[in-house]
Amino acid sequence: MERLSGLDAAFTYLETPSLHMHVSMAAVFDPTTVPGGYSYDKVRELVSERLARAPIFRRRLVQVPFRLDHPYWVEDPAFDIDYHMRRAALPAPGGIEELAEFVGDVCSRQLDRSKPLWEMYLVEGLADGRIGVVTKIHHCTIDGVSGAELLSELFDLEADPAPKPVAEELPGLRSGLPSDLVLLGRAVVARATRPARLTRLAWKTGKAFFDVRRVRQSTPAGNAALPLTTPRTSLNQAITAHRRVAFSTISLDDVKRVKNALETTVNDVVLAICTGALRQYLIDGDELPDDPLVATVPVSVQGAQVKSANKVSAMFVALPCRVDDPVKRLLTIRDSTKGAKEEHKALGAEVLLDWAEHATPNLFSAAARAYTRFRLAEHHRPIHSLVISNVPGPDFPIYLGGSRLVAGFPLGPVMDGAGLNITVMSYRGTLNWGLMACRETVPGLDRLAGYIPAALEELLSSAGLDPATPVGVAPGPDRRAPVG
Amino acid sequence: MERLSGLDAAFTYLETPSLHMHVSMAAVFDPTTVPGGYSYDKVRELVSERLARAPIFRRRLVQVPFRLDHPYWVEDPAFDIDYHMRRAALPAPGGIEELAEFVGDVCSRQLDRSKPLWEMYLVEGLADGRIGVVTKIHHCTIDGVSGAELLSELFDLEADPAPKPVAEELPGLRSGLPSDLVLLGRAVVARATRPARLTRLAWKTGKAFFDVRRVRQSTPAGNAALPLTTPRTSLNQAITAHRRVAFSTISLDDVKRVKNALETTVNDVVLAICTGALRQYLIDGDELPDDPLVATVPVSVQGAQVKSANKVSAMFVALPCRVDDPVKRLLTIRDSTKGAKEEHKALGAEVLLDWAEHATPNLFSAAARAYTRFRLAEHHRPIHSLVISNVPGPDFPIYLGGSRLVAGFPLGPVMDGAGLNITVMSYRGTLNWGLMACRETVPGLDRLAGYIPAALEELLSSAGLDPATPVGVAPGPDRRAPVG
Repeated sequence: MERLSGLDAAFTYLETPSLHMHVSMAAVFDPTTVPGGYSYDKVRELVSERLARAPIFRRRLVQVPFRLDHPYWVEDPAFDIDYHMRRAALPAPGGIEELAEFVGDVCSRQLDRSKPLWEMYLVEGLADGRIGVVTKIHHCTIDGVSGAELLSELFDLEADPAPKPVAEELPGLRSGLPSDLVLLGRAVVARATRPARLTRLAWKTGKAFFDVRRVRQSTPAGNAALPLTTPRTSLNQAITAHRRVAFSTISLDDVKRVKNALETTVNDVVLAICTGALRQYLIDGDELPDDPLVATVPVSVQGAQVKSANKVSAMFVALPCRVDDPVKRLLTIRDSTKGAKEEHKALGAEVLLDWAEHATPNLFSAAARAYTRFRLAEHHRPIHSLVISNVPGPDFPIYLGGSRLVAGFPLGPVMDGAGLNITVMSYRGTLNWGLMACRETVPGLDRLAGYIPAALEELLSSAGLDPATPVGVAPGPDRRAPVG
Repeated sequence: MERLSGLDAAFTYLETPSLHMHVSMAAVFDPTTVPGGYSYDKVRELVSERLARAPIFRRRLVQVPFRLDHPYWVEDPAFDIDYHMRRAALPAPGGIEELAEFVGDVCSRQLDRSKPLWEMYLVEGLADGRIGVVTKIHHCTIDGVSGAELLSELFDLEADPAPKPVAEELPGLRSGLPSDLVLLGRAVVARATRPARLTRLAWKTGKAFFDVRRVRQSTPAGNAALPLTTPRTSLNQAITAHRRVAFSTISLDDVKRVKNALETTVNDVVLAICTGALRQYLIDGDELPDDPLVATVPVSVQGAQVKSANKVSAMFVALPCRVDDPVKRLLTIRDSTKGAKEEHKALGAEVLLDWAEHATPNLFSAAARAYTRFRLAEHHRPIHSLVISNVPGPDFPIYLGGSRLVAGFPLGPVMDGAGLNITVMSYRGTLNWGLMACRETVPGLDRLAGYIPAALEELLSSAGLDPATPVGVAPGPDRRAPVG
């Protein structure tokens, strides 16, 4: 039995029937590399075996009575692999559009809190005999980086690996559900020790805000973006429970060519491509704002001394959609992220994690529900325009049950007042983009995804570089080099 | 704008996150009869056109503020056909098991109250190029009989029918959502006139119960089953949100042979087959009870003078699982349904409808939620063992967009404390059985479905009749006679 960290628990409190806090991945696999050929039962058996090595797949939440404390993880005594793993198929032609529709449907449904918080769909019927694997995991269990680590448990580096050693008993989880009395006892102890820790935290936070003000005064004004300064667009509405999903793939080499030519980072180029695509999308809707959009960009804080699945904080970056010149847009972003990083350092990575630790569950939940219910997102200046997340992936081929990964598209949650999330992951010379949006407020998501390669093209040409390398949405396994 | 009847509204109040009040149909179609060949877009267009003729597909609920009165139907101003109609596919081999798994998944999800309360899935990838059509409609919109009427709007009697005339404006629904003030005003008027009507109803009900007692005293004891007398079995547990589905098909002619030989009704034979299958299922689990199971059997009351989608009442029938001889089981059931019908007549079909009309929304909902939350279903004698519903279907071929219906399997909701629903519908010389169950409490549903043809076989042989006619689960279109 293990207590959730405050930030992990916050992801459960913030969830409402229309705001789902799961993260997903839509992956395309080539099963021609499977020794003896692909079958659903083989993959099911492999996943079952590997689960024994990753306790997070078999643990479920228990709430403390009267929600006096954050919930606990316990091993699910009724764990049933066939509830979590499902076999499915796409209608013909089984292309990326059919996959996106399937994934949009899966992501529109909240995970069941009475079970371990994950689902995995094996999707057959993709073009060229390929297999889709759609995973959906609750954010309280995983963030981008810990998700990648977790998947390394499930995936292999070759098509026919040696069997992994059998896991010992699951650490940190006790069989069976704890009694309410045990949970209450622990909550009372946690409450008793809280005031002293809160005093220390208040002191630390005050100092951190003072540091931020100092940074802001000593650096050029306007570099770092501020939350609640973003202009309202069609992206900033109260959301429904329903999602749309779209995918795009571009060449990582092209992105690096831009990065090197203009002395920026891959992350800055990703943000510039988002800016270009969003600019065109907003022009289409005749709603290009004068002020820059503000993106929340999650930052990993792996060094932080907090035991939590989510070691993550966030910086705010201005996306200058109004600027006409693609290179100028990128250089503006570079300055903005520099400022944001300084501020983020001054604030201290752990302050957000620490506050999440001490807020009470009931306060969090009541606020989240009231926010959704009264559609408050439509009554104040939006906090941010969207979330953009950039997760590094492997640059070597990986396998699931012998099938080789062709492309993996990550998908993050959307929020009330910001109905779009763009998450990007690299894999073997490509950058794969997963766009997740509220179905009703962002109906043109496919169009926006189509602007992503165009925005890269525009950036290359404006920087005087060669045109973009054409990359299919699901590149062939032997496009770059013969493998295994 | 139209107010829901009390019984229709009750189906919305009784719904909880684990107790879903939708009715479904899993139909298998043969698309070889489509002029010019099948395509998803053709079916989508046909359904869109026909929707204009059936207002229930485009109306949604609005709640009265503070739930002072039953909700109203209004036309959905944001109606989007692509939300309600979805294209899907089954993994190979696309047999009845894969279809059942898909349908179980669809039925595990509550309908979204903010939209018109229906979904339709066109399922490709069935064996032999067949097409599945899975519909899911909220019970507050439809009962078995009105559902059949509604489908006649959607279906045709030939593969290439003349176009239907374009519908005029939808009756009874006004465009746009009403204001809270309008809804409140109406609720206040309804409340003011309620006391007089309640007095009349109480008088009528008292008289009805007196009549029931008279019937009970004048007929042989033990004939009619009583609710809350059923023995507890594994079927009677608190349910989860998750469903399993299974199908079975038998020959209607065989059922009629039994009916004629023993002078009973088709409904009695259906109940006897259920009894035989359940007997074997309970013997497997070593839990065959001494007392008969009690089934709730919905009865259509189309004559009732109530404006309601659900013109339905219920009788309670004893299923003598303990009795060894199949013919004796059937004759016992015949006596029980006779008694139940007398009592039902004495009670008056409209009393249930009338009480539902006058109970307040908040009382209904609070009771339903408390019942689920405290798992009360496990703390009193079960009300009944299961629901068995028998709906007459067409005995001639019907078509959807040119595809000929091969078989239609109806599925009804399950309830806390009774995790199994068996619904049966006839079509062209076959009886198609849809079994719906709570996924966790009835894990052996496939096995139970397999006992249905065996129970018919046993009944025929015990009555000295020829063995059963073999019928596939999805019989070929030309099994009985060449058509069209």
